[in-house]
Amino acid sequence: MSVTIRDVAQASGVHVSTVSRTFSAPHLVNAETRTRVLAVAEQLGYRPNRAARSLTTGRTNNIGLIVADLANPFFPPLIKAAQAAARRQDYHLFVADTDENPAEEEDLVLAFSKQVDGIVLCSPRLSNKALEKLAKRVPFVLVNRRIRGLTTVVMDVAQGARAAMEHLAGLGHRRVALVSGPSGSWTSGEIRKAVLETPDLETVVIGPNSPTEEGGLAVAAQVAEAGVTGVLAYNDLVAIGLIEGLGALGVGVPGDISVIGFDDSITGRLYRPKLTTVAMPAGDAGRMAVDLLVQSMSAATVLETHLVVRESTAPPKGVP
Amino acid sequence: MSVTIRDVAQASGVHVSTVSRTFSAPHLVNAETRTRVLAVAEQLGYRPNRAARSLTTGRTNNIGLIVADLANPFFPPLIKAAQAAARRQDYHLFVADTDENPAEEEDLVLAFSKQVDGIVLCSPRLSNKALEKLAKRVPFVLVNRRIRGLTTVVMDVAQGARAAMEHLAGLGHRRVALVSGPSGSWTSGEIRKAVLETPDLETVVIGPNSPTEEGGLAVAAQVAEAGVTGVLAYNDLVAIGLIEGLGALGVGVPGDISVIGFDDSITGRLYRPKLTTVAMPAGDAGRMAVDLLVQSMSAATVLETHLVVRESTAPPKGVP
Repeated sequence: MSVTIRDVAQASGVHVSTVSRTFSAPHLVNAETRTRVLAVAEQLGYRPNRAARSLTTGRTNNIGLIVADLANPFFPPLIKAAQAAARRQDYHLFVADTDENPAEEEDLVLAFSKQVDGIVLCSPRLSNKALEKLAKRVPFVLVNRRIRGLTTVVMDVAQGARAAMEHLAGLGHRRVALVSGPSGSWTSGEIRKAVLETPDLETVVIGPNSPTEEGGLAVAAQVAEAGVTGVLAYNDLVAIGLIEGLGALGVGVPGDISVIGFDDSITGRLYRPKLTTVAMPAGDAGRMAVDLLVQSMSAATVLETHLVVRESTAPPKGVP
Repeated sequence: MSVTIRDVAQASGVHVSTVSRTFSAPHLVNAETRTRVLAVAEQLGYRPNRAARSLTTGRTNNIGLIVADLANPFFPPLIKAAQAAARRQDYHLFVADTDENPAEEEDLVLAFSKQVDGIVLCSPRLSNKALEKLAKRVPFVLVNRRIRGLTTVVMDVAQGARAAMEHLAGLGHRRVALVSGPSGSWTSGEIRKAVLETPDLETVVIGPNSPTEEGGLAVAAQVAEAGVTGVLAYNDLVAIGLIEGLGALGVGVPGDISVIGFDDSITGRLYRPKLTTVAMPAGDAGRMAVDLLVQSMSAATVLETHLVVRESTAPPKGVP
């Protein structure tokens, strides 16, 4: 067990609050007591409690990062870059995973809010309204959700979706499917809009779907029967699940149906056939989100004061 | 900004410590004051500070989990299972990543130690001595490190390594290489011991290596020139990097050299050739580590591993 403030108080013969003050406001403790407490603390190996200090200084030097699913290969490069950015600025990064569950997301924001100085919330599944409410409790930066008034880093997925559609059209495809993502996903909505606005391509939307291999596998038969020759999938995992499912139905990729993923994940790069995919600047997003968060937290605005000399001040008596 | 204890104190006309006691030790506050403080707290939307409560109760209801590299596909299934176990017991799980750096590992244990009730430390790279020292500060459970007196969950990698060697010997291979892992890894040491003790196989050890694709890629030429027809790699990523590197040198897998990985990761399952690999019960380990941590039991749990034979192994050329 680690040494507590109570151990130090008992061994020093003072009250717990005196030990606390010795570390948080030493000028309020008389010199003799302070010296004794510090000596005892040193002897016992007492480490002033970060949580306790955070009550005084309002700082933990920790940043929380919340993702929808750690097992999705999209997230590790984002997390690693966020972590490196946090370390450069002397913060620790703690990561939590919502399992794509909005209620869990809210719960984790609240749990983090007292243990960290700020949160990077990636690909949130909560509603804009819920996020606006949470933003009043704790500083956070959103990744891949755009809400007026909140700091946000988004990747231009619409541009990527358009490029994917143009690639399919350029190959001669005329009727294609979008295998979309989960319903709470801003990214999926943006991709959908861009796909439906593509000229010269007939488009069917299949979804919402779980953003996993299982999600792709589950719609393989539907895709095979949709009369399409091309597919844009919500992400690489969905694309891979779909390709596996199509293979089981005897539908070849790209021989019979072309499939494009999203994310350019390591999983997609190692898969065979090597996936055509939309690369996402996930590392940049992680780094920039942390930088913006740290800037917003340390942006303590200092306003100048100035002295107004009127009539209540004068030289002391006797001074000419 | 969130409502602070000071806001509640001011609005209730009582001292901050009275508000604190109202939440932490309500029986010490007189009924009238308590009622007023609670009404004001409710009205202002005050949420008792988890950090503050932790000072009183010694509980945060958070568990920390530290891994060597979140981007290694070995870890997500372990983390997800640990998270599910934590949730079942009303704990939040916060994850941190050491980037395979022992100094960072120590730093993260210390950072976590005041924000969580206990830590699951996976595949640590610190020395036993350093870990024994840290264990005095905060309750933790080790995964894949065995230290007398500390609670630990290890996977029986020696058993898996022996099965892999027997598989290669059974296919007719006579001279094989172990492409080992990082130097601080207990797992790598256990695999090495088991491999070197294998009868009927001439073994060369190549390493230590980074436990990544780059690590495997970097030794491809060395493996190609080692006069071996079979390889056991430290993990699936190393195996894949090695296979890619051998391919670039015109050495086919399994045609020229058989390669076995470790972990049975999603990455290995999707790769072609499908990897022969040693399955690791990572999910079980994550779940049990959290359960053990929560129960604060002191036991060494050993989980079995097993060999998965797929397509990356074959008899050496010339063996009928």
